[in-house]
Amino acid sequence: MRTEHDGGQHDLRHHGDAEVRDGGAALTDLAVNVRADTPPAWLRDVIAGSLEGLAAYPDGRAARAAVAERHGLPTGRVLLTAGAAEAFVLLARALKARHPVVVHPQFTEPEAALADAGHVVDRVLLRQRDGFRLDPALVPEGADLVVIGNPTNPTSVLHPSALITELARPGRTLVVDEAFMDAVPGEREALAGRTDVPGLVVLRSLTKTWGLAGLRIGYVLADPGTIAELERAQPLWPVSTPALVAAEACVAPRALAEAAHAAHRVASDRAHLVAGLREFGPDGLYVAEPADGPFVLVRLEQAPAVRRHLRDLGFAVRRGDTFPGLGREWLRIAVRDRVTVNRFLQALDRAVTLAAG
Amino acid sequence: MRTEHDGGQHDLRHHGDAEVRDGGAALTDLAVNVRADTPPAWLRDVIAGSLEGLAAYPDGRAARAAVAERHGLPTGRVLLTAGAAEAFVLLARALKARHPVVVHPQFTEPEAALADAGHVVDRVLLRQRDGFRLDPALVPEGADLVVIGNPTNPTSVLHPSALITELARPGRTLVVDEAFMDAVPGEREALAGRTDVPGLVVLRSLTKTWGLAGLRIGYVLADPGTIAELERAQPLWPVSTPALVAAEACVAPRALAEAAHAAHRVASDRAHLVAGLREFGPDGLYVAEPADGPFVLVRLEQAPAVRRHLRDLGFAVRRGDTFPGLGREWLRIAVRDRVTVNRFLQALDRAVTLAAG
Repeated sequence: MRTEHDGGQHDLRHHGDAEVRDGGAALTDLAVNVRADTPPAWLRDVIAGSLEGLAAYPDGRAARAAVAERHGLPTGRVLLTAGAAEAFVLLARALKARHPVVVHPQFTEPEAALADAGHVVDRVLLRQRDGFRLDPALVPEGADLVVIGNPTNPTSVLHPSALITELARPGRTLVVDEAFMDAVPGEREALAGRTDVPGLVVLRSLTKTWGLAGLRIGYVLADPGTIAELERAQPLWPVSTPALVAAEACVAPRALAEAAHAAHRVASDRAHLVAGLREFGPDGLYVAEPADGPFVLVRLEQAPAVRRHLRDLGFAVRRGDTFPGLGREWLRIAVRDRVTVNRFLQALDRAVTLAAG
Repeated sequence: MRTEHDGGQHDLRHHGDAEVRDGGAALTDLAVNVRADTPPAWLRDVIAGSLEGLAAYPDGRAARAAVAERHGLPTGRVLLTAGAAEAFVLLARALKARHPVVVHPQFTEPEAALADAGHVVDRVLLRQRDGFRLDPALVPEGADLVVIGNPTNPTSVLHPSALITELARPGRTLVVDEAFMDAVPGEREALAGRTDVPGLVVLRSLTKTWGLAGLRIGYVLADPGTIAELERAQPLWPVSTPALVAAEACVAPRALAEAAHAAHRVASDRAHLVAGLREFGPDGLYVAEPADGPFVLVRLEQAPAVRRHLRDLGFAVRRGDTFPGLGREWLRIAVRDRVTVNRFLQALDRAVTLAAG
């Protein structure tokens, strides 16, 4: 089993899937940030079609070319990985960083991977009172590797791309985790496809929008030299044939149109969720806004008790206390359809009452 | 692209799949050591059934328990990996070896992974005049990591397990790649499941017998301390859900019985192939014997020209010159069914004539 990485304060290896897994199948899942009702039937059919060819070793060339074309990049700027998790391990192992900095609160896996590879990781903590917004001045000038998420998990903050590129420096690798960017309408503030930012490394996932968490597929966009370094650190045949076939399908125009449509629906469902959360009043429940990801971060008294009562009422939400910069009073709630959100808001009302009494 | 690792003498990153891939789909494949007509329909159905659940992150617990049970081991001695290729990278990265030794000729990926991780790798070369048999005295006493394959790719030699365990020492990790052991009737000479050999690490693959090269699944058996070290070096969620489901199915009693049956068929088909090869006479063509793997290593004059003519005649075989200890005059031939073998032997006869003329 993996161990904690920062003296026990935050279990960087805790993820939303554990909150659903250990509660049994009966829980309605608002803990994991994967789009509901995915993968769609057409995508399952595409993947199923690849099973006839499993006896052959994977050949990633077509998928790599398709991803490159989707972002208007040459293939030498693209690396397919077994999920973003593999990309974090490759970055941690292959890059010769002496002063890596992770901007928190954010997905904990980049820091965990850096620590596992022997790096001493520095943290920048964005704060509630600043709306968890990025202040480039907080990042130490000597940092030669900076990791930031956009939109950020778990705060749901979408940083302006112009603010992020202010972090770029000669001799610095700037890693932007855009795992949730395809859930933002128009992918505004995306840096994927940009070649004018020195040291830029963009990570993308196909997991969340397409429901492929079980398949392990994502990709890295960076300058050809960095891509070659990361590729050398990869095992042979790193991505399975079904995952390659899925990647190719998910960057085709038809899929991009579907993802864009889904992003608008997420925005609408999120507005519904946030409106419902606001009814608890700013004293009872604080909502981190504006939220631009497919999840919402909230702060409330008695959050651990509320979360326990929610589980009894059939709903799993993500605890916030494993994220550096947050504490026990924070919860992350995935955006779901209106009917599920309405059921959840009723349960939350009951859970808050139970926790208070 | 990967580069060569030993000054250009041997391209350690050349594998059989490239020989088939670059020749077009029309070639009959005797270059890749994957069992023909795999995966079987029942296994494809099992894998297809897992696609409904792809939105969830992989949960490896059931597959790990099934593999442990298959070898009569506790789960703490088992690690599932994204193919044996990932296992080699984990071993190269996680183990603190100062004097790693690879016994050649063998699968080149272990040495390539060690070199990529910064190790200086020492080689023991087994020789044709010794029938490529292991002599434990050839391994330097100071080696703290020894890698050997059994049965060995590409020589098809099955070393006695008692000879291999002579290599075990306190303070030495002994890695035995048993990727092809399930193609040996009765798995005689297997070390998987043994807990009495200090420092023993056994690698297993489900790729070859089950036709899952495209799925990326294998496993490591070792003492719990080594398993924990390797696990820490793995990315989060390293093995996909379809691969986990396949692993669980492939170690079930029904699958083991099918594999045992297939091993006997391979032995019979191999005998047919070897008998046909012997007809070329010892002066024209030398067969490395006894062969116990699902492939046969041969030496013949003009091997590069013969291989080229074979391609023109529709057959891909594996060049031998990328294996340390072998040269341009070696070829590896995968065992196929009798009909295919007969067609191949006719083509080989023609290719030898063409090369001589």
